[in-house]
Amino acid sequence: MADNEQVMNATGEPLVIKPSDLDRDLGFGSVVSSRRNIRLLNRDGSFNVKVVNGPAWDHLISYHTLLTISWTKFYLLFGAGYLVLNAIFAGLYMLCGPDALTGPSIGTPFARSFFFSVDTFATIGYGNVSPGNVAANILVTLESMMGLLMFAIGTGLIFARFSRPTADILYSRFAVIGPYKNGIDAFKFRIVNRKQSQLVNVDAVVTHSRFEQGPTGLERKFFQLALERNRVVFFPLNWTVVHPIDEKSPLNGWTPDMLRAGEAEFYISLTAVDETFAQTVHSRSSYTMDDVKCGENYRMMYEAVDGEFVLDLDLLDKTEKAVGSRK
Amino acid sequence: MADNEQVMNATGEPLVIKPSDLDRDLGFGSVVSSRRNIRLLNRDGSFNVKVVNGPAWDHLISYHTLLTISWTKFYLLFGAGYLVLNAIFAGLYMLCGPDALTGPSIGTPFARSFFFSVDTFATIGYGNVSPGNVAANILVTLESMMGLLMFAIGTGLIFARFSRPTADILYSRFAVIGPYKNGIDAFKFRIVNRKQSQLVNVDAVVTHSRFEQGPTGLERKFFQLALERNRVVFFPLNWTVVHPIDEKSPLNGWTPDMLRAGEAEFYISLTAVDETFAQTVHSRSSYTMDDVKCGENYRMMYEAVDGEFVLDLDLLDKTEKAVGSRK
Amino acid sequence: MADNEQVMNATGEPLVIKPSDLDRDLGFGSVVSSRRNIRLLNRDGSFNVKVVNGPAWDHLISYHTLLTISWTKFYLLFGAGYLVLNAIFAGLYMLCGPDALTGPSIGTPFARSFFFSVDTFATIGYGNVSPGNVAANILVTLESMMGLLMFAIGTGLIFARFSRPTADILYSRFAVIGPYKNGIDAFKFRIVNRKQSQLVNVDAVVTHSRFEQGPTGLERKFFQLALERNRVVFFPLNWTVVHPIDEKSPLNGWTPDMLRAGEAEFYISLTAVDETFAQTVHSRSSYTMDDVKCGENYRMMYEAVDGEFVLDLDLLDKTEKAVGSRK
Amino acid sequence: MADNEQVMNATGEPLVIKPSDLDRDLGFGSVVSSRRNIRLLNRDGSFNVKVVNGPAWDHLISYHTLLTISWTKFYLLFGAGYLVLNAIFAGLYMLCGPDALTGPSIGTPFARSFFFSVDTFATIGYGNVSPGNVAANILVTLESMMGLLMFAIGTGLIFARFSRPTADILYSRFAVIGPYKNGIDAFKFRIVNRKQSQLVNVDAVVTHSRFEQGPTGLERKFFQLALERNRVVFFPLNWTVVHPIDEKSPLNGWTPDMLRAGEAEFYISLTAVDETFAQTVHSRSSYTMDDVKCGENYRMMYEAVDGEFVLDLDLLDKTEKAVGSRK
Repeated sequence: MADNEQVMNATGEPLVIKPSDLDRDLGFGSVVSSRRNIRLLNRDGSFNVKVVNGPAWDHLISYHTLLTISWTKFYLLFGAGYLVLNAIFAGLYMLCGPDALTGPSIGTPFARSFFFSVDTFATIGYGNVSPGNVAANILVTLESMMGLLMFAIGTGLIFARFSRPTADILYSRFAVIGPYKNGIDAFKFRIVNRKQSQLVNVDAVVTHSRFEQGPTGLERKFFQLALERNRVVFFPLNWTVVHPIDEKSPLNGWTPDMLRAGEAEFYISLTAVDETFAQTVHSRSSYTMDDVKCGENYRMMYEAVDGEFVLDLDLLDKTEKAVGSRK
Repeated sequence: MADNEQVMNATGEPLVIKPSDLDRDLGFGSVVSSRRNIRLLNRDGSFNVKVVNGPAWDHLISYHTLLTISWTKFYLLFGAGYLVLNAIFAGLYMLCGPDALTGPSIGTPFARSFFFSVDTFATIGYGNVSPGNVAANILVTLESMMGLLMFAIGTGLIFARFSRPTADILYSRFAVIGPYKNGIDAFKFRIVNRKQSQLVNVDAVVTHSRFEQGPTGLERKFFQLALERNRVVFFPLNWTVVHPIDEKSPLNGWTPDMLRAGEAEFYISLTAVDETFAQTVHSRSSYTMDDVKCGENYRMMYEAVDGEFVLDLDLLDKTEKAVGSRK
Repeated sequence: MADNEQVMNATGEPLVIKPSDLDRDLGFGSVVSSRRNIRLLNRDGSFNVKVVNGPAWDHLISYHTLLTISWTKFYLLFGAGYLVLNAIFAGLYMLCGPDALTGPSIGTPFARSFFFSVDTFATIGYGNVSPGNVAANILVTLESMMGLLMFAIGTGLIFARFSRPTADILYSRFAVIGPYKNGIDAFKFRIVNRKQSQLVNVDAVVTHSRFEQGPTGLERKFFQLALERNRVVFFPLNWTVVHPIDEKSPLNGWTPDMLRAGEAEFYISLTAVDETFAQTVHSRSSYTMDDVKCGENYRMMYEAVDGEFVLDLDLLDKTEKAVGSRK
Repeated sequence: MADNEQVMNATGEPLVIKPSDLDRDLGFGSVVSSRRNIRLLNRDGSFNVKVVNGPAWDHLISYHTLLTISWTKFYLLFGAGYLVLNAIFAGLYMLCGPDALTGPSIGTPFARSFFFSVDTFATIGYGNVSPGNVAANILVTLESMMGLLMFAIGTGLIFARFSRPTADILYSRFAVIGPYKNGIDAFKFRIVNRKQSQLVNVDAVVTHSRFEQGPTGLERKFFQLALERNRVVFFPLNWTVVHPIDEKSPLNGWTPDMLRAGEAEFYISLTAVDETFAQTVHSRSSYTMDDVKCGENYRMMYEAVDGEFVLDLDLLDKTEKAVGSRK
């Protein structure tokens, strides 16, 4: 890509990128461009960046964490928080004196306080145990308020997790460099939508970086790879994203060994519209040369069976020796 | 459409599609293009694709299912889940020993356990029956936690269903091929907004496929049909989407019988902005030749009555013999 | 506007409208164009269209209604529903026999049943009155389930009302046709944002219709009016939207009396981004000649006072006799 | 910027702004342009505008306020509201007569009423105290309804606060005018994303205003500053936004003292997409000449350490004497 080229950016708008500026336009600065042996984008799409001296509460459980941890962890956290809060209130009720709670004893005094707290926090209120003095009643007022608040926050969080626009796109474990057509090779990877919700207007942008000899030593250079197609309108099956390695390709003349020596990295940035919520979703990943198989192509993932198409997700990573590969 | 044509895609951006690539740009690959007697898009807008070997939980009730089933099914599922969970807890309370619950007996011991569980799960807590030992109290702690969680999830789901952007667009049962103007015919179908919420900036894209003789046998070919207009700004009445069959039309010279033999299919893709939530909504449908009436036109659906326009949804499917039809 | 003109449409995309198609592109068909004495767009921005034979539930309270009625009506409806549901359950409890409820009598038997139902529906559960037989307990199970469901729906609705993107844009009561510059007049109206939330990127589209003599009699013609500016980036003060009546204006040479005779109507369509929720909001209105003052201009609405700008909403509708008006 | 220039506006659409219209297109009118010693945009991005005669409820706590106050204030308000409402209901229960509440006395009669109200409002319902007459039961009906409603509103508000798209972008305390390349200076400021959620497609628009001698006296003139780049695709590190002061720059030939005398102001408008919610977020700020350091440049904020990049937020405001500054 020796000259400027009009490409579609991740949101589908035309974006003119001057190759010499690609490193900065991507938001990676000069330090990034000169350091070796350091990956920019991790395989899972996160950036290889650690922030220090951020707000103190980032060290505790943040909203972002509560949104992005797995459901299992979320429920465990919810359960632990529920038990801890009730234990704290149980302790406080015990400080309110012997007449704080009236009713039959259940297990130890702490157990009685704890179960009374659950009774209150969850707004059950059996009344078998009830608050007996003013201090306990003040605590009940506080705990009920807190219970309502926590529950409202929990409901909000659960819904926020539900409605968060996420693309569950599976990337093939390996990219391939294999024969294309007219005797040239192509860089390819394959994606599939794992969710039941349809994705439409799927856009792909593939950026390639490698170290090359520059005026002041080795420099990380960035190239946007021209794709056979940047967008598919529907995505009910798989999509093999293809960059043909023609004469204008920055990969032209680079052997796998040269790319490996140059710490080549391929950044994938996808956007799509999730139909169920009409939300724009983003997905990122990256391949290094350790994730590229040369001289292979993907096997078909789907077949027409009994009047419908059957897509087998287990075949996503299946490649086969390509016939006529030059590599 | 013998040459490239700048069309508006579903989100209103200009999109240049090379006809030879239309099959792939739509996300249907080469297998799709060569298999006969298999529909690509179902009448209700879903794709004719089955996914196998997906995540195991897809076989159970998924989030996507909970969002997209009807309200009746959703409520039934909610009620069934409520009863089952309470029955499970009722069983567990019975395992806690004879002193687990104190208070008068109501029906059978299981009934008492069950109603106590409801009392707890719903956080009512009458207290006529109350937990009598530590084991029962631990169960209560667990059940209250679960009750709050389930309720939060239920609230989240209900709101997610409410706020899901859906276009309730009615398509006329039949498309028509009937006389247009200047002596040519047109392919037409008619849509109307069934929801009370206004739709604005409604965009339509119509794609046509049929089998034609290619170099390696019969091949499914794709054509985007040029429309009289791709967008209407307001949509308070009906919209008859019209593709004039002029010399440049891929339908030019194709009789209904030829289209039928070629397994012609017409894919409709609509996008619009729902004003109530300012959300972009999508709608898809398809017509095969079994859904096309030739030589007919639509009857008017609305009239001016007493100073306002009256739109009669019952007339959506009404067609009449067209005067001057060539078919 | 005798020739085509590239304008920005309501979502900011360039849109080429052929004047002869304006009537249809707006979504108003040929009947609309030929009927006299019938307004297309009401002053409050709603369409003058009634739908018949729609889904039956549209006659009852629909989701759309629950979202768009005023908060006062919403709360009254909520309260009425709460009382009615509890009254129904009160009746059902009375059908469960004399031993359905245990505990002291409160007022009439119906009152006791009613208050017990409230106790249950709201999941309070004092336990002063409690269910005494299996039938009553089954009802309690049903009512608690329904209570949770209703509450979840209520919460969902309230949040949906909160989060609904609405533009509370005030339009000046009257548009004006008054002196502009270089000796020509302009059609103007003035808007202001009544909400505390900032609006940015406000786009305006003004369309004008009137009856003119056509080949087959009087026809409603549509014209898009070129504006001095289509967009303001920020909207902290007022915005006077201006259409200069130059030689290319469709209003050029039309006196107020001619416009009135032609049933002239001016349709305003605004879109903007609400900053608080980053949502795109829509607003529509229309002016007929009864809403246009000729030979007047607007008075200033804001002044710089003590280092800040003070915007007085009471001055929105204030006009004054214009100097040098030709009308 | 003596001639028109195609720039990207805040939403990434190309926007042609005629310099002479910049003052009005930004939404600031003629009064704004002629008043001196008055800032247009405050440092925190709010407009320096006060609205009078708005709706009466704006003086009370509005939805906008409840969304935008800090979480601490929000919780305090919630707590205060909870206590006040219960105190009101406590008073009402006392008006219902001596037999309104049955059960043991707890502290004063008001305390008993208050704690009973909490018991009801939070739907706990211990039953140690219960309503004894019809009037008290009617109050309970009302309070339970209100409790459910308030809780639903609270949940809605909390979620609305959670899901509100906010950009927590930190701006460097000072902008700098320092050496760029090829012997020219540049106006720069530096931003960083303080949130854990990634921002993508970050767009910047910088507008500059100053007073200049016009035909009718001093006038505020507006200029959009051309940037080295208007957008970065990813934003995991910092971004130094750069306006090179070349011959076409409106800052060319203006010394810091001249700018200070002209009450120069620099308006920053950023938009970006928050990946966690796929929402477009806005951020604004402004610099006056008191916020600009001349002859300085920013120090690096990040380093490559042990195979990852470490970004130190404490270094955001760190500048250093620039070598070769002409100022």
